[in-house]
Amino acid sequence: MLADLALVGFGNVGRRFATLLAERGARLRDDEDLTCRIVGISTRRHGAAWDAAGIDAPAAARAVEQGGSLGEGGGADATAALIAGLARSTADLRVVIETTTLDIRAGQPAIDHVRLALSSGCHAVTANKGPAAFAYEELSRAASASNLAFLFEGAVMDGIPIFNLVRETMPAIDVLGFRGVVNATTNHILSALEDGEAFAPALARMQAEGIAEADPSLDVDGWDAAAKTAALANVLMRAGITPHDVRRTGIGEASAAAAVRARAEGRRLRLVASAGRLPDGSIDAVVAPIALAADDLLAGLRGQANALVLSTDLLGQVAICQLEGSLTQTAYALVSDLVTIARQHRARRAAPPRRTP
Amino acid sequence: MLADLALVGFGNVGRRFATLLAERGARLRDDEDLTCRIVGISTRRHGAAWDAAGIDAPAAARAVEQGGSLGEGGGADATAALIAGLARSTADLRVVIETTTLDIRAGQPAIDHVRLALSSGCHAVTANKGPAAFAYEELSRAASASNLAFLFEGAVMDGIPIFNLVRETMPAIDVLGFRGVVNATTNHILSALEDGEAFAPALARMQAEGIAEADPSLDVDGWDAAAKTAALANVLMRAGITPHDVRRTGIGEASAAAAVRARAEGRRLRLVASAGRLPDGSIDAVVAPIALAADDLLAGLRGQANALVLSTDLLGQVAICQLEGSLTQTAYALVSDLVTIARQHRARRAAPPRRTP
Repeated sequence: MLADLALVGFGNVGRRFATLLAERGARLRDDEDLTCRIVGISTRRHGAAWDAAGIDAPAAARAVEQGGSLGEGGGADATAALIAGLARSTADLRVVIETTTLDIRAGQPAIDHVRLALSSGCHAVTANKGPAAFAYEELSRAASASNLAFLFEGAVMDGIPIFNLVRETMPAIDVLGFRGVVNATTNHILSALEDGEAFAPALARMQAEGIAEADPSLDVDGWDAAAKTAALANVLMRAGITPHDVRRTGIGEASAAAAVRARAEGRRLRLVASAGRLPDGSIDAVVAPIALAADDLLAGLRGQANALVLSTDLLGQVAICQLEGSLTQTAYALVSDLVTIARQHRARRAAPPRRTP
Repeated sequence: MLADLALVGFGNVGRRFATLLAERGARLRDDEDLTCRIVGISTRRHGAAWDAAGIDAPAAARAVEQGGSLGEGGGADATAALIAGLARSTADLRVVIETTTLDIRAGQPAIDHVRLALSSGCHAVTANKGPAAFAYEELSRAASASNLAFLFEGAVMDGIPIFNLVRETMPAIDVLGFRGVVNATTNHILSALEDGEAFAPALARMQAEGIAEADPSLDVDGWDAAAKTAALANVLMRAGITPHDVRRTGIGEASAAAAVRARAEGRRLRLVASAGRLPDGSIDAVVAPIALAADDLLAGLRGQANALVLSTDLLGQVAICQLEGSLTQTAYALVSDLVTIARQHRARRAAPPRRTP
C-alpha cells in the first residue's frame, strides 16, 4: 500500500517525523505493507517544496536546520496548493501531516488545515490538540462522511497511546471519566517547588534548560492542560466542549508554599486534569492544582512523567503512564496514526466502516 | 459477522464471560458488526451441552451455579466432540473459548485445548497463561499457518490491554525489556507485611477473604508471576522460554522483616517480574522480591493493583496499570480477544495477513 504524504509545518516535530519515517521505512513495509512517500512540504518561513515522485525529506530537514529554504513560496497559499496537489495523487492513501504552531486559545491554524485536508479528500493527521479540543465533532463527522481518518494521537502525552488505546484495545467499553497529569512543564515546576525552590527561580531554570517556553503562560496558566482535557473529553466521552469550558486554575507564586505544605502533610501538589459526567449528562472538566494523597498514582509522577487514569465501566480504573518525554515520541505519534490509517483502509476495502470511536 | 463459540471450561471466568457477552451483545453488533452465539459448552464435572442454534448460556450459568448439570458427558471426550462440532459450523468465525483450570507447572490442559482448536480450523482464545508461557512459538506458528488467531489477553493483568496494547497501538516499535508487579495475591500480602503484619496471619487473612487460594504456593512461590513473565517475554520479546527458565524467588516468613525494613528505609518491597536481553541476545527473566525506591511507579502499587512498565526503543518507558481487579475484567479479556478476531477477519478478507506480532 502506497501512502503519499504532505507535510504542513516543518518544525522540530515535522522534521523528526521525516527522519523517523526514513529510519522505520523498511519496518513499516515489512510489518504493515505500507510504503510512505513525502511528496510535499509547506512552511511559514522556510519556503515550500513539491515533488510527486517523492522528496528526500531527511535532506530537507537538514537544509532547514542549517537555515536554508525548501524553495519558493510558503505560507497559507503554499499550504493550499500543497493539499490540492496531494488530492490529485493516485496513491492508495493521501495523508496531510499537520504540525504547525498552534494558537491554543483558538485551535488555529490546525483546524483550518485539517478541514481543508478532509474537504479535499485527504486523511488528516495532526500533532496538535487544537482540532480535537475545539472542533472534534465537526471534523470527525466530516472525516467519517468521506471514509477518511482524522487522527491526533500526539495531542496528549506525545506518542503514548491514549486515543488508540481506547479505540483499538477497549471495544464495547464506556469511559466514565478520567484524571491525569498531562502537562510536563508544570509538573517539572511543581516537583522543584516541593523540593523547596521558589516559583520564579524554578520557572527561570526550566526556561534556561529548555523545559519551559520563553512565554510559559500557556503552561502555568493551565491552558495547555485545559486543551488536552477538552480533547480527551470530546473523544473519549463525546463531551462536545472547548478548552474555554474547562474550569481552569493554573499554578503561580502561591503554589510554592502550597507544594511545600502538601509535602509536609505527606501529600503531593500536582496539576490535575479531570473530567466526569454530571447527573444531567453534561461533562464537568477541570484543571487545577490538587494536593494528592501520597499513594495516588498521580502523586508519584515527577518531572516530565505524565499519566492518565481512565475510569471505565468494565475495567475499573486503568492508568497509562509516560515516564520519559522526547521529540521522537511526539514524532512517533504521527507514525502510529499513519499505521492506523493503513490498517483501517485495509479493513474498509472489505467491509463497511465501523462506527467512529 | 456471525461467530459461533464453544466454551471449554465453565468455571467462574467462563460463566461471567457468558453473561457479559449477553449484556454487551447489542453493543458488539452495533460497534463491531459482530454477533456471537454460544453453541457448545464442555465442563469436567458439570456435563456438556451442544445446540447448533445457540445455547442460552446465562441460563446454563445459573444452572451450574445452583449445582445442576448441563447435560450428559463432560471431560476430555466431550471437549473433543465439542471442538469437532464447532469445526463443522458454517458461521464466519469459529472460536474456542478456553477457561479450564491450569496446571501452571506444565501449562496443561490449556495447551492441548488450544492445539486441538487450531488443528480443527477454529480460532483459539484462552484466559490461561499456560499456552503463551509454555508453547507460544508452536501455537502462534500453527495459528498463523492457518490464518487463525491464538489470543490470550487475559493471561496477564486480566482484561487490561497488554498484548493488544503492543500489537495494536505500538506498530514498528521494539520492546527491549519490562518490569512489573503482576501477581495480586503476593502484592496484597506484601502490603500487609509492610503495615506490620506477620506472614502466616496475613496469608491466612487473605485466604479467609478469598484473595489467596486454599493452596497459595503457586502465588507465594512466584510460579504465577513466572508464568506471566514467560508469556510476556515470549510474546513481546520472542524469548522462546518457559516458566522454568525464569529465575524465581518467592516470598515467605522472611519477607515480613524485609518489608518492614524496606519501609523504614523509605523503600517498598514488591515481587517484581522482569525481563531484559543479555549481550548474547538471550533473555534474562527474573521474579524476585525487590526493595524499590519509593518514587518507583511499582512501589506505589498496593493490594490488588498491578502494573507493567515496558522499555521500548521509540517511546522510552511506558507503564500500564490495573488499579482494581474483578472477575468481569478477566471475562472482558475474552470479549476483547473476540473483537480482535472479528477485526482481523475483516482485514484479512481484503488483504494478506500482517506478520504475526
